[in-house]
Amino acid sequence: MTKLLQTIEPILWRDERLHLLDQRVLPHKENWLEFHDSDAVAEAIKTMVVRGAPAIGVTAAYGVVLAAREAWFSAGENWQEAINPPLKRLAASRPTAVNLSWAIDRMKTASASLSKYESPEPALLTFAQQIHQEDVKANRTMGQYGADLLDNDSIVLTHCNAGALATAGFGTALGVIRQGFIDGKIEHVYVDETRPWLQGSRLTAWELMQEGIPMTLQADVAAGALMASGQLDWVIVGADRIASNGDTANKIGTYSLAVLAKYHGVKLMVVAPTTTIDWSIDNGSQIPIEQRTGSEVSEIDGRPIAPSEVHVSNPAFDVTPAELIDAIVTESGVVRSPSKENMKQLKSEEEK
Amino acid sequence: MTKLLQTIEPILWRDERLHLLDQRVLPHKENWLEFHDSDAVAEAIKTMVVRGAPAIGVTAAYGVVLAAREAWFSAGENWQEAINPPLKRLAASRPTAVNLSWAIDRMKTASASLSKYESPEPALLTFAQQIHQEDVKANRTMGQYGADLLDNDSIVLTHCNAGALATAGFGTALGVIRQGFIDGKIEHVYVDETRPWLQGSRLTAWELMQEGIPMTLQADVAAGALMASGQLDWVIVGADRIASNGDTANKIGTYSLAVLAKYHGVKLMVVAPTTTIDWSIDNGSQIPIEQRTGSEVSEIDGRPIAPSEVHVSNPAFDVTPAELIDAIVTESGVVRSPSKENMKQLKSEEEK
Repeated sequence: MTKLLQTIEPILWRDERLHLLDQRVLPHKENWLEFHDSDAVAEAIKTMVVRGAPAIGVTAAYGVVLAAREAWFSAGENWQEAINPPLKRLAASRPTAVNLSWAIDRMKTASASLSKYESPEPALLTFAQQIHQEDVKANRTMGQYGADLLDNDSIVLTHCNAGALATAGFGTALGVIRQGFIDGKIEHVYVDETRPWLQGSRLTAWELMQEGIPMTLQADVAAGALMASGQLDWVIVGADRIASNGDTANKIGTYSLAVLAKYHGVKLMVVAPTTTIDWSIDNGSQIPIEQRTGSEVSEIDGRPIAPSEVHVSNPAFDVTPAELIDAIVTESGVVRSPSKENMKQLKSEEEK
Repeated sequence: MTKLLQTIEPILWRDERLHLLDQRVLPHKENWLEFHDSDAVAEAIKTMVVRGAPAIGVTAAYGVVLAAREAWFSAGENWQEAINPPLKRLAASRPTAVNLSWAIDRMKTASASLSKYESPEPALLTFAQQIHQEDVKANRTMGQYGADLLDNDSIVLTHCNAGALATAGFGTALGVIRQGFIDGKIEHVYVDETRPWLQGSRLTAWELMQEGIPMTLQADVAAGALMASGQLDWVIVGADRIASNGDTANKIGTYSLAVLAKYHGVKLMVVAPTTTIDWSIDNGSQIPIEQRTGSEVSEIDGRPIAPSEVHVSNPAFDVTPAELIDAIVTESGVVRSPSKENMKQLKSEEEK
């Protein structure tokens, strides 16, 4: 079983190209797409061929490698200027996940130290692969830290997909669930279908079923009644951006779950690598919330499920205040009862 | 506009047959189905050709008329015994809405007083039409009572469809919204899409758009963030069964909205005719909750949106405790802060 856990990897670099498992058509088709230019990578992020904050970060790092190749071919020794426009387009592909700009910034910093007279591609590829490996390693570490917080035979609910597919592999929230299952901490997983994009039905259910982790899929609206039944111990989710006080932006619906969890005495765990933390902002009100097209709500697979011309609001994320979160689990440690003060301790731990 | 309000009527008796607007294919097709036997009516209720507690009650009343016709044809003077099996099948078609058994019981009581030597059909048809007319009248009355509770220019959220389509016409929750819009009490309506059956996207959006009431459709998961934004004044919903203490079973997700509303200081109004009240039960724990097929969650229009063989939980309703409800609006009056005591006053009002 452990072997299988390791085999879901949605991002591969092979034959000088980036390969992405197309998450728009899962679980019905396992279709890999190849990318050899950075603008196509930006489009793939925007259209959610790849999604999940950590996976977006790793993908963007490889996007920078492709941008560097293009800049070297087109501009030669001026590649460090030529690379800027495609990097801006990559950075603008989605607004909420901070891992995206983190990865691009890190790659830019690395590129600044490179010679202008040599192709930057080999060195940047090494950096991108390092980001990739670090993410997998961070997931493993978080998986164990998070699982250690659970009592034996816990019943948990997860929202969206913070799994192997949302990362370079193993997963954040699902990493904790995977490790928890191995350690006997997880008895059953409830999976929110996660409208409108159905990451839960399509991706999380698929991941858990591949590994034989006992699960039940439900409509998002069923979470309240499940909590009222007294069965649930934890809600475990990922994050798209965490402010320096612990306020957390995650998939729309997470905030509702957080309020419900607090009301019912169910605990809430946020699992995310430190690359998800935006130390530059004080609180969640400063996190931009992406509005996506209304057709994600009014259509399924291009077929209408609402009147045509219907007016739709489709925010992709919401912000959960830190006081509703019991623990933020990172690869640098666990922040219990997150607050500005408690988060600072994590920062100093991280900087050691 | 008022004229249009009156024209959505999902249940018609014409040419000695029951005609139902097929709610499974709205809003894409306006398709009417004809029924001339009671078992087909039971199946139509079960498969949600018609849905919504009051509409189910009215439909069942006409189902009894058809059952009486069958019993008279097949058993003659023994029709009062012969009618029992089809009535049991009608009553078993859906478990949660109490209007169903209420309507069948009322029709049975009426039939008991009829001669065994004459066809019971004409008399029972008159009774069914009376139930039908009473429902429309009750909706109009509730619409005004509920609208009177709103401040001018309120912003409201509704869940599921408690509209003209869920009743004999005009609607319960949507009756309040219609009347409120006419009276200048409603500025904007947010509509939960209402997974899994999408009553909000398919039916409520359609009803509101037909009448030009300003509305925004959203995924159910967006309700928490909407409330956190401070815009929302009321959540207005219907009910499938109300216990004698005011605990209310309604479409799955209502309970989550009630908890969120309480947390954010948003008010919750339940709108339902007195036929929805089950005076025989003390509280909501005694209300049976229908589990429907998992394919409602894992498929849309017969196309899979989750892995095949996925395990699904699909409760159709949940129970909102009375203490989370600000007002229950009925045609006999409004119960504020519903409780066993406050509900009793309504009962005595109703019995006057």
